[in-house]
Amino acid sequence: MVEAALIQALPAAWDVPGSLRESMNYSLMAGGKRLRPILVLAAAEVLGGSLEAAMPVALAIEMVHTYSLVHDDLPAMDNDDYRRGKLTNHKVYGEAMAILAGDALLTQAFFSITQAHKGHGIPAERVLSITEELAIYAGARGMVGGQAADMLGEQGITKLEELAFIHTHKTSDLIVFSLRAGGHIAGATSAQLRALSEFGNAIGLAFQIQDDILDIIGDEKKLGKPVKSDEKQQKVTYPFFIGIEASEQKVKDLTIQAKEALLRAQIAHPERLLQLADYLMQRDH
Amino acid sequence: MVEAALIQALPAAWDVPGSLRESMNYSLMAGGKRLRPILVLAAAEVLGGSLEAAMPVALAIEMVHTYSLVHDDLPAMDNDDYRRGKLTNHKVYGEAMAILAGDALLTQAFFSITQAHKGHGIPAERVLSITEELAIYAGARGMVGGQAADMLGEQGITKLEELAFIHTHKTSDLIVFSLRAGGHIAGATSAQLRALSEFGNAIGLAFQIQDDILDIIGDEKKLGKPVKSDEKQQKVTYPFFIGIEASEQKVKDLTIQAKEALLRAQIAHPERLLQLADYLMQRDH
Repeated sequence: MVEAALIQALPAAWDVPGSLRESMNYSLMAGGKRLRPILVLAAAEVLGGSLEAAMPVALAIEMVHTYSLVHDDLPAMDNDDYRRGKLTNHKVYGEAMAILAGDALLTQAFFSITQAHKGHGIPAERVLSITEELAIYAGARGMVGGQAADMLGEQGITKLEELAFIHTHKTSDLIVFSLRAGGHIAGATSAQLRALSEFGNAIGLAFQIQDDILDIIGDEKKLGKPVKSDEKQQKVTYPFFIGIEASEQKVKDLTIQAKEALLRAQIAHPERLLQLADYLMQRDH
Repeated sequence: MVEAALIQALPAAWDVPGSLRESMNYSLMAGGKRLRPILVLAAAEVLGGSLEAAMPVALAIEMVHTYSLVHDDLPAMDNDDYRRGKLTNHKVYGEAMAILAGDALLTQAFFSITQAHKGHGIPAERVLSITEELAIYAGARGMVGGQAADMLGEQGITKLEELAFIHTHKTSDLIVFSLRAGGHIAGATSAQLRALSEFGNAIGLAFQIQDDILDIIGDEKKLGKPVKSDEKQQKVTYPFFIGIEASEQKVKDLTIQAKEALLRAQIAHPERLLQLADYLMQRDH
């Protein structure tokens, strides 16, 4: 469903310069797990919301995630040539176009959100809450803040708390947003939104630690990128601080904690989200 | 009013990495005419709207304008070292931080818009229309599309229509958005919004042509940047196509056209906007 909707995210009727459109679509359609849009849809589903109405928000979060990867890969940032086994955006379209494509994807995300109201009748009040939360979780207080802290900290992170700050904002914030946005679409109560946040913070951290573990013991073919890159870049990670075994235990503990948060909330059929938590813990790429 | 509000745009209480906050504030507070926020406030005012309620949207458009300058100045784009007589963002904070500061300012703009509802009681429906329009006018179909077309066209623009496309999207779109957004805040009718769009398109093009004229015959000290940069970069401009005299006449014609559009609409006191149109035509920097 997400792939089919992403293909149509930039309608042919829109007057967009050809190379800009190609550059945006290149990264948007470059694969990936589509984890964040799936979390939007799953959160809407477990609360009895409409998947169709949640789709514009699902697309929005994938656009934000994609823009962040395009800008992250730039020479001035991580300077990566490959992502998911394909050339990065700036290697294909040049740096200037990659910067503009990222800017356009971020802007387009906010357009997409508004369509949950205009196209699917979700009350304007709720859609405005989603807009506000995306701006918080993806901005200076959220994801971009996490990236800045990561960059600034590359010189030397010495405490696990500093690493936790970076993980929370670089990774968990968009995951928490996705879950809450799905909740808003379904008209979630405050208590349900809190449970979704708690679930998201726990699986977000578990997701990041699992990433760090896979970078050490994963299979390059399955990952689509070279392993041991953190070690080469002298990146400080959870396994670096507490070892692989304790990191694996932490992933398990966080997954249990996430599930418990969900089970405490008044959600009739939380199965889909519980399955996703297990899938993330067990993934090998 | 705008300067005072901009200083408080990133509250001290927000947990934002220090250098990111500094980098954002550096460009946000680097001066400039504040034309776009003033247009938001003036459009709200002539239609009897509240300036306080319009301010979050005024700040939003200045954030979008600022982010576009920060990214435009990057080495991969225009590679400018100075803007308004000051070092550009990446010359002070480095390229990576300039990219992130731009991303954060764009994201923060959408947060700011939502506060017109949350903080000032403008109906959610109207604020959502402003959100949607910002995403259209600032995105791939708007400003970013204009920048991409400008970049792609640098190899050789041969028609005035190609130049008009670039001017419309690079410059007029944000001006049209500013006026319409002020209109939405004040509860403008469809006819009034159309008049504001027409006014904005005309003064936007006049503004750009005046910029091109000043680049040829202006005073470096007043402009805060070197003149004849378009000629040096072999940039195609209106004066290049039709000469300075015809360009000056075009600015006058567009200003009259802008005022007439406004006078045809049912607006009781359009004075403030009419004054702004004259100011823009007569400016020397």
